[in-house]
Amino acid sequence: MKSVKAFAPATVANVSCGFDILGFAIDAMGDEVEVRLKDEPGLVVVSIEGDEGRLPYEVEKNTCAVAIQAMLDEMDSQVGMEIYLKKGLPLGSGMGSSAASAVAALVAANRLLGEPFEKKNLLPFAMAAEKVACGAGHADNVAPSLLGGFVLIRDYHPLDVIKLHVPHGLHCTLLHPHFELKTSDSRSVLRDNVSLKHSTIQSGNVAGLVTGLFQEDFELIGRSLRDVIAEPYRATLIPGFYETKEAVKGAGALGMGISGSGPTMFTLSKGEEKSQAIINAAQQVYDSIGLGVDSYHSAINTRGAYILEEK
Amino acid sequence: MKSVKAFAPATVANVSCGFDILGFAIDAMGDEVEVRLKDEPGLVVVSIEGDEGRLPYEVEKNTCAVAIQAMLDEMDSQVGMEIYLKKGLPLGSGMGSSAASAVAALVAANRLLGEPFEKKNLLPFAMAAEKVACGAGHADNVAPSLLGGFVLIRDYHPLDVIKLHVPHGLHCTLLHPHFELKTSDSRSVLRDNVSLKHSTIQSGNVAGLVTGLFQEDFELIGRSLRDVIAEPYRATLIPGFYETKEAVKGAGALGMGISGSGPTMFTLSKGEEKSQAIINAAQQVYDSIGLGVDSYHSAINTRGAYILEEK
Repeated sequence: MKSVKAFAPATVANVSCGFDILGFAIDAMGDEVEVRLKDEPGLVVVSIEGDEGRLPYEVEKNTCAVAIQAMLDEMDSQVGMEIYLKKGLPLGSGMGSSAASAVAALVAANRLLGEPFEKKNLLPFAMAAEKVACGAGHADNVAPSLLGGFVLIRDYHPLDVIKLHVPHGLHCTLLHPHFELKTSDSRSVLRDNVSLKHSTIQSGNVAGLVTGLFQEDFELIGRSLRDVIAEPYRATLIPGFYETKEAVKGAGALGMGISGSGPTMFTLSKGEEKSQAIINAAQQVYDSIGLGVDSYHSAINTRGAYILEEK
Repeated sequence: MKSVKAFAPATVANVSCGFDILGFAIDAMGDEVEVRLKDEPGLVVVSIEGDEGRLPYEVEKNTCAVAIQAMLDEMDSQVGMEIYLKKGLPLGSGMGSSAASAVAALVAANRLLGEPFEKKNLLPFAMAAEKVACGAGHADNVAPSLLGGFVLIRDYHPLDVIKLHVPHGLHCTLLHPHFELKTSDSRSVLRDNVSLKHSTIQSGNVAGLVTGLFQEDFELIGRSLRDVIAEPYRATLIPGFYETKEAVKGAGALGMGISGSGPTMFTLSKGEEKSQAIINAAQQVYDSIGLGVDSYHSAINTRGAYILEEK
């Protein structure tokens, strides 16, 4: 084998009340990375498509290269590889763009090397890439992008990542208004402290959301999609947030939250049928504001990243 | 029918990371209440056994009477009843003593009246009694005592009570050191604010605990039994708390937490076999401190309160 191409899906992190602990993967979009063996040691980023020239080629800054290098370091390997990245995700959108690149690169490189690592054991390498891309080694995008489905990051010390049940028919609609929100800005509006009352409400909703997933109780999932800790602050950075929430709920969404640190918003719904009405409802709101909005809808991706091609 | 006797089980509220939102019922202990029709309107508390004379007979203060009166008020009924309470639970122990009395009274009275209410709809009346007994209408003892199993109180406005899955073989050991802890003291040590970090850790553990219950993953249940919000403060009020925690974990407990507002501690374990070792380990700690400790062990009660006798 000389070359492997892999796909890693977009992800929704935070998931409303699941702030900093939950994430899920969606089928509709993702990044592709091809990795080719080369004779000399060292990594080279050969091409990046679909980023409008914004992503770095330097191997210490490119998330694909950083992730693969972390894996090679762990193996004490000097294997050389060429990296070809094809972005399917918009940057800075809150859909786990950097995570998808790192995960696709790792899954491809791991296969190229004969799979020295089980899939889930690639996670720390992807987190190393997230640290370079986002300043923090969060797992809530990389874990669902790698493993698929709904993923709980229970703890980081040691890392404890648990796949949850995904109800049959759970559908996601993503609404991406046309502006960029820096993760650092979205972080900076958060408070360092929360009231005991809000902390308890958040716990109750997280427990409700997890229960709703396991019991396939869509109404309970909807009732539980309530974030009293991050959303009240972050929503102020997203024009039209509350109007959109009201509109999409009226159109049949179970609930709505901010995807990652925004500005993309996600809704969950029972089945695919309501997606178009949800998209139309959001479109109307953003038409009235005068801001463009891209919309995608998708089933939950339950298999995570996968190999597209090997030769 | 002239008379009905019902049993309501002891309960563990809070459940470590499930502070203020989770509770479960245990088979081993509980209160019995007999309710008899009488010809004249009005409630009378005729006898109370097992309370060492500490519980009030006044119908505005007795939790059995308050609960039944709330039910009668809802029905706009003037039916008269005599109440006979037999305490099986120690007072002020953190095992849901007042809740068990109220729930047993309601279940008996409801049957006596021909079951005008579904079981779960008795909950608001039991909460009215908790408000009189504890100063706050919490549901985290009354809901599991009434319904059995592990119960999530997701929200109070409106009340949203959800039964969780109970893994086969999940066993509880209760350790009740010989001193009384006032709920008000246990409340007063809590802080009004928590750090965002601790709030997130608590959410992660709650999600892990709920997932562990649904997946019957005992190890995950154990890892998730970690309360960073209430326990650090409340544990200081319970002599020997951390030594006991270490000792019972060494003896095979999955984890340990404070039951309700204490001083009783609960442990969870896989199967009944480890209970004696857990009890012995705790006994040794309290022997060394010079404090007595009562121990009980029990399967999780999954059916809640039930009728013992009717005639």
